[in-house]
Amino acid sequence: MARLSLNQATIKRATVAEAVDGCARHGVESIGLWREPVADHGLERTAKIVQDAGLRVSSLCRGGFLTAVDNRAALDDNRRAIDEAAALRTDTLVMVVGGVAGDKDLIGARQRVADAIAELSVYAAQAGVVLALEPMHPVFCADRGVLSTLSQALDIAERHESVGVVVDALHVWWDPAVDEQIARAGRLIASYQVCDWLTPVPADVLLGRGYPGDGDIDLDRLTRQVAATGYAGDVEVEIFNAAIWAADFDEVIGEVTRRYHDVVEPAL
Amino acid sequence: MARLSLNQATIKRATVAEAVDGCARHGVESIGLWREPVADHGLERTAKIVQDAGLRVSSLCRGGFLTAVDNRAALDDNRRAIDEAAALRTDTLVMVVGGVAGDKDLIGARQRVADAIAELSVYAAQAGVVLALEPMHPVFCADRGVLSTLSQALDIAERHESVGVVVDALHVWWDPAVDEQIARAGRLIASYQVCDWLTPVPADVLLGRGYPGDGDIDLDRLTRQVAATGYAGDVEVEIFNAAIWAADFDEVIGEVTRRYHDVVEPAL
Repeated sequence: MARLSLNQATIKRATVAEAVDGCARHGVESIGLWREPVADHGLERTAKIVQDAGLRVSSLCRGGFLTAVDNRAALDDNRRAIDEAAALRTDTLVMVVGGVAGDKDLIGARQRVADAIAELSVYAAQAGVVLALEPMHPVFCADRGVLSTLSQALDIAERHESVGVVVDALHVWWDPAVDEQIARAGRLIASYQVCDWLTPVPADVLLGRGYPGDGDIDLDRLTRQVAATGYAGDVEVEIFNAAIWAADFDEVIGEVTRRYHDVVEPAL
Repeated sequence: MARLSLNQATIKRATVAEAVDGCARHGVESIGLWREPVADHGLERTAKIVQDAGLRVSSLCRGGFLTAVDNRAALDDNRRAIDEAAALRTDTLVMVVGGVAGDKDLIGARQRVADAIAELSVYAAQAGVVLALEPMHPVFCADRGVLSTLSQALDIAERHESVGVVVDALHVWWDPAVDEQIARAGRLIASYQVCDWLTPVPADVLLGRGYPGDGDIDLDRLTRQVAATGYAGDVEVEIFNAAIWAADFDEVIGEVTRRYHDVVEPAL
């Protein structure tokens, strides 16, 4: 289980302290953090509690939301996010780049993302943080992420220092080009995240994620593709699911470790 | 309004007779039919009522669901659908090819679709019917359609006689390659369908469609791309939406004609 990371969003109701404690008790050595609960606990306090527990921070989520025509405030906020990642001693800031922003101009939104990443990459490089562009499932194109494929994310990442990509199984599994784009990504894979696609899609499409193995994604195959690139980083289990959020933290972390062991680890 | 076609699913509660009557009263000259209500009304009776009203049948929906490992029954049903299209005097059978079918084998499912279309294309050519492969938004990859991009559909369509593609705005708008793939499609575009992508996605993701102009899709741009290929066929307005299904048929058809006139027709 040396490479399992618990993404904090999987136990969304937990505080930073509860999440760190849960990882320690279940032998999970790495954690993926989110800015809001980190701010609630305090940035420096979070850095200390994580370090005292001997945990790695596999990533900080999230920067992004850069698609507005006037994105100056967003750029400032992203620089703060980069600083926070550095303070937490993670080299990976997950970037959810933002949706169409209400003006139907998808091409313009994608261009604004490319321009903003070019600008932010300089700051990120100075901080020793990689901007990990997360291609989002196209169901989120309107409201969350206009980068819809790994190919698009790589087109940007390849042009700059300190920019990589996230391979999140849920977002990329449907893509007919996923094999070749994972191979193309190679060392640009900054994070590999797993969960599963549930059918039917629940009432809130954002929450249609299940434990690895419970859905339609061939995670064995996808994980082998990622491993074949030489990716040696942590594997985050990140699940947004109302029933899992309502469950006991310990039960959830226990199930995460079992699924990681059964479904993911054999393919690494 | 010479090229507007009302897809029958937009007024789902209407019988064939009510839909045909509505088209006639609103000056809509073409209709897209679905197999189930056609069967309810009777195939020959439907062919006659449509012809007596002077309507074109822009398409019949739907064949497909070919992804099961044993798809012999599905192949038989698709041959019946081809016969029905011919009886209704439409040359376009919309194909929703089917989902992953519960075994996580997306690559296998896609191969079975390609093989089945190769087999069915011979029968379709003899009947004078084009199998119009509909790439489906990736949110439907698990349960409805494993062809997720226009590029994939064209890879199959280009290899056979009597196979084309559907460009449905809802399914393709997010695709970063949509411009080049529409241009590639050229005369293989068998049907162009419009509606709009609503945000937030409603509880049933299948019903997240709005009137053209009400959502996030740049329909003017997309329609110009389709028109630039020389596409001269009907434009179907096909909307799955609980509120529109609950509304008065006449109001809905009236709104469809206004939106077509305002949003679509100027770009043709």
